[in-house]
This record gives sequence, C-alpha cells and structure tokens, in this order.
Amino acid sequence: MQVNNSAYTSCWYQPDTRSLCIIDQTCLPYEFVILELTCLADVCEAITSMRVRGAPLIGVTAAFGLAFALAEDADDQHAQNAYQALLQTRPTAVNLRWAIDRVWHTVSALPPELRAQAALAEAGAIWQQDIDTCEKIGEHGLLILQQAVAEKPSSQPLNILTHCNAGWLATVDWGTALAPIYKAHRAGINLHVWVNETRPRNQGASLTAWELRQQGIPHTVIPDNAAGHIMQQGLVDLCIVGSDRTSARGDVCNKIGTYLKALAAFDNNIPFYAALPESTIDWTIQDGPREIPIEQRDAREVTHISGRDQQGRIREIQLIEGSPVANYSFDVTPAKRVSALITEHGVYQPGNLQALQTLLADTVN
Amino acid sequence: MQVNNSAYTSCWYQPDTRSLCIIDQTCLPYEFVILELTCLADVCEAITSMRVRGAPLIGVTAAFGLAFALAEDADDQHAQNAYQALLQTRPTAVNLRWAIDRVWHTVSALPPELRAQAALAEAGAIWQQDIDTCEKIGEHGLLILQQAVAEKPSSQPLNILTHCNAGWLATVDWGTALAPIYKAHRAGINLHVWVNETRPRNQGASLTAWELRQQGIPHTVIPDNAAGHIMQQGLVDLCIVGSDRTSARGDVCNKIGTYLKALAAFDNNIPFYAALPESTIDWTIQDGPREIPIEQRDAREVTHISGRDQQGRIREIQLIEGSPVANYSFDVTPAKRVSALITEHGVYQPGNLQALQTLLADTVN
Repeated sequence: MQVNNSAYTSCWYQPDTRSLCIIDQTCLPYEFVILELTCLADVCEAITSMRVRGAPLIGVTAAFGLAFALAEDADDQHAQNAYQALLQTRPTAVNLRWAIDRVWHTVSALPPELRAQAALAEAGAIWQQDIDTCEKIGEHGLLILQQAVAEKPSSQPLNILTHCNAGWLATVDWGTALAPIYKAHRAGINLHVWVNETRPRNQGASLTAWELRQQGIPHTVIPDNAAGHIMQQGLVDLCIVGSDRTSARGDVCNKIGTYLKALAAFDNNIPFYAALPESTIDWTIQDGPREIPIEQRDAREVTHISGRDQQGRIREIQLIEGSPVANYSFDVTPAKRVSALITEHGVYQPGNLQALQTLLADTVN
Repeated sequence: MQVNNSAYTSCWYQPDTRSLCIIDQTCLPYEFVILELTCLADVCEAITSMRVRGAPLIGVTAAFGLAFALAEDADDQHAQNAYQALLQTRPTAVNLRWAIDRVWHTVSALPPELRAQAALAEAGAIWQQDIDTCEKIGEHGLLILQQAVAEKPSSQPLNILTHCNAGWLATVDWGTALAPIYKAHRAGINLHVWVNETRPRNQGASLTAWELRQQGIPHTVIPDNAAGHIMQQGLVDLCIVGSDRTSARGDVCNKIGTYLKALAAFDNNIPFYAALPESTIDWTIQDGPREIPIEQRDAREVTHISGRDQQGRIREIQLIEGSPVANYSFDVTPAKRVSALITEHGVYQPGNLQALQTLLADTVN
C-alpha cells in the first residue's frame, strides 16, 4: 500500500543485511521509522513492544525470528528455546504459533546445517502467502460491499465501521478488515469509514486513520463510546473487524471493545463481519469466551499516552494517577453476534466453519 | 462529601460576596480550584466549558445564573434574554430548563424589584432540594445493593460498574449513580467499583475515580472498551449510571457510551440501573432515540487531551491530526435495555414511569 505515494509492505526481508525490515508502528502516525531486525532478541522485542502487531504480521515476524535463531545455532535445544521465547511474546494471537509451527515442521527433519536456509525460505513463503491471502479476503469482502451498495440509494456513501487496526499494517499487505475497503475504493465505490479510536493504544486513530489518509479514503475518527450511537442513528451500513484468534465454532477474539461494537450492530440489525485468514482459526478451541487466554498488558498503556505538544514534540503525559487500572487487551465476540467470517477461502457463517475445516482437510488429503 | 478530609458540596452560595462558589471540574483530578461566579456571563461560561457538568448540577447552577441576571435587570425582556442564553449553554440535559422554568415561574408574577431576591431564594431551594433528592436516590438504591449482596457468596465484594461521572460532583452532594454506592459503603457493604474512563473528557478516570479515592472506596479504572469483557467474564454484578434526560417511556439519555454498556449488561443478564432525579424526566418526549437532541461538541475534546508531563506540569497534547473527527456527547439507551430507574420517589421499571407521573400529579393536585 501507499506511504507518501510510494508502495510499501509492512515488513520485508533484505538479503544483503540478512535483516527483516519493519515499520516501527509505535512511532506512527507521527514518524515513519524503518527498523532492521537481525536476531531472535530483536524479533521478540519488536513483538512484545508492539512495534509490529496484528495477528498475521506477528506470525510472519515470528517466522523470521525462528529463522534468525536457527542461523545462530540450529540444534534442537536451541530451536526449542527460540520457539518458546517467541510463543511467550504475545499469548492471544494464534497465528504466531501457527507460523513458527510451520517453520519448525519444515526444517526439523533436516540436518542442523541445512535448517537456517530452509527456515528463511519458509518464512519468506509465509510472507508471500500472507499477501495473497489478504488479497483474496479483499476480493471475497468486495462482493459483500458491492451487494450492500446495491441496496442503498445511489447518492449516499457506503458507511463502514471498523475497530482497531486490521489494515495492511496488521498484515504484510492489504490487511484483513480493510482489504475489502481497499478493493472497493479501487473499484470506484463511494464509501466512508468510521474509525473507532480504540483505547488503549489508539490503533484506530493512529494506524487505521493514517492508512486511510495515505490511500485517500474518506473516514471519520470517533471515540469508542460513540459507535453505538451512530449505529442507532442509521449512520452505519455494516461493520468489519479483524480477528486475533477465532474458535472452531466461530467466536471472534479481537482487540478489546470489539464485542461492544458487535452488540450494537446486532441491536440495530447491522451486519457485523470478521475478516481473517484461516490461520487465525484455532480448531482446538470451541468456547472462545471460556478458552481463549486474554492477554493483560501493562497498566501504563492506559494511564499514559503520547501525542504532539504545542511545540510539535512527541511527548508522553500521565492521564490517571492514584487509582488501580486494569488493561485487558482482547475480548471475545460470541459467534451468535457475528454475521459472517470473511476468509481467503470464501465467506462462512460462524456456525458453518466445519465446512471450511472439511474443505481444508480434503485439500490436504 | 469529603475532599482531603473536609466536607464539601460541589457548589454553594456565599452571601457576603453574592457569588456562587463552584469547584472547577476541568482542573480535577490535578488541582482543586474554587471559582466564584457572580453574573450571568460567568454562569454561562462555566456551564459551556463544563467547569460544572452533570444534569442536576447544571440545573442548580443555571438557577443561580437566572437569579444573578435578575439582580442586574429584572424586567421581562432582560429575564427572557437571560433564560434563552442559559438554555443554549447545553442542549441535552433537561434539568437546566426545569430549573430556570421553576425560578421564572416563581418570580414572573412579582414586580421587577422583588424578583431578584425571590429568584435567589428559589435557586437556594433547588440547591437544598437537590441534596435531599440525591440522598433519597441513595437510600432507594441501597436496598437494591443490599439485595444483590444477599445473593452473593459472602466473602466476595459486590462489583458495580459505572460510566462517566454521576457522583456528587454531578449534583450538589451525594450524586445519582454513586449515591447508592456511598450509602452502601457507609453501611459497611464490601464493594468494588469498575470505573469506565469515559472518553472523551475522561470524566470517569478524572472525576469518578477521584471521588471514590477521596471516600476510600475500592475501584479500578478501565478503558471504555473493556466493559463488555469484564461483564462476560462474570466480574460485574450490576451497573448503575446517571441520566441527562429520560423520556416518558423510560429511554435514558446519558454520556456517550452508556448504550454500549447497557447492551453488554443485557447480553450477560446483568441488571442495568439508571439513577436520576425526577427532574431529568422529560414528560413531553416518548421516543428518546428519535426525539432527544444530542449535543455535538468541539472535535478538540477528542483530538487533544491533558495530563501530567514528566516534570509534573499539566500539559495538553494532540492525539489525532489530519483526520476528521466527530464528537457526540450523549447517546440514548432504549428503555428495553434498562432494568429499572432509581428515583427519589422509589424504583420504577421503565415501562411503569406512568405510575410516577400519576403519583406526581396527585401530589400537586
């Protein structure tokens, strides 16, 4: 996607320096900073600090992290230590485990001296597949948006609400929830996106709004609290969000606050879609609210916030002092509040994910 | 209520200076600043800038504003100009109109030279009545909390979620939503309050948390987005919020985001109460979502925020730049999502407000 009119992906491997280049997302929207990760420790730090975030991008980055670890020392013990270190960086997103499982599965049968190169190749394959997957999500989602447009009076823009950032910054390119929006914009559909600011960390206001500005897509930022009101007042045609982990029965674990928006959509008969690669589906889990571990992060993400001061400098201030603070990073929207899941394999009702599992099993066999 | 172990009300009339003293709520929680309002312009500015806020307190303050205007010039035209100026300060809260109607009704039949003194006396009566009203709300609400405690295992605190600030700072004393909590705390009930930070303006984190700290009541601040998750996980026993305007059929207009919390409570079978003086009920309105005007305030309340910098100075920073922003101040929770309304006259199901109206008519007749 475009950044200041140049095409970028959110990360890319640079062979001459043997590094994974990333956009440091903690600096956005104020500064566009490229970092080079060259070792396991770099990768773990980047994921933990949320310099890279978004389930698909975490998976891709972790895959390179395991490849870097194998380049240092490719024996089984070192590989397992690296695997565990990566797994512990973020507990909720399941793509991370999926990606490093895939790399390890590819290389574990090889003699150690061949593992690093094979792991790097597999990480590169995951990187490329993520782009293709997200583009397919965009194409399937586009059909939904086209249908929604057909049901509206022609002069009005299609109003889409999204939460947090499930754009190209959360993946390698295209995004999940935003991929259909990018496809629709390119297809000339008149649309407008409501962007929840998405406390804490404000990835809606900082990342999604930035992405949409860069692509020239009309949008309005609102406090998270306003999402119910605008749905009740008929200002939203449909919602699309991403997913960090999806249970086999279709419960959607995503950035904290997603559940509240799904409830408002349901209460106002507005379709609520989750867009996700199949790799975010955890087939081992049925009951999302009971079984998906919810990461609790540092209270400082809630008590402190950064922005630009009157002199234009980026400055951190403290908003809350003297009171205990809780910081749950994700919530789970029960399948019954989700209209459909937009995947690279097509659009599935949450209760019909079994059909996708069968399809995938048939493909493998 | 207590501020640094001294008893305060949120405003009080000081005869020697002929001024209404207020706590400047835009300075909390960082500084405790008392301002003296002495004329209509002072009062309009204090309400518009939200130095005083909360429907009951706006009403009381506006009543003094009309009295100050009549002290300057008590003829009909001047009084009507003052009435209109006050009415335009905040369009959603109905107590403002109720309070200045009451003052004008009391004095309009008097000769102009007697009006100012009578208006001041009536404003004082409204001030005292607000304290009594809120204390009664607290007593009726206490019965609900005692019943909820009786249904819990004895060792666990009663977990109550509230939104925005409907504490003593939103009234003259006691508060509306927090009055039952203060009563319960004094009655020795083991309780814990979940405080939504309440973007924009963060009155939960800045005012409610400050109030609870001052009274020594256990509480935890959460981002607004987290309210659904904690309800789903069984961490909330009941919700209590205030109301800025209540329709005759029981729709509750309150700070933006209230509706989303009510939906989460409903989805998880958690009782959701609104605590309000009868003066917030607009008997002329049935359909709240269609008929109650929703104030849209300056986008700057969303794009900018203040807090303490590393040197301890209060500083404003800009969070959002380059994107359009919408700032709706209130939303309306439909009556079907409200368990009951706690008023000074007792607890009413939303669909049974007619009984309260009949009771009030009988009392007047």
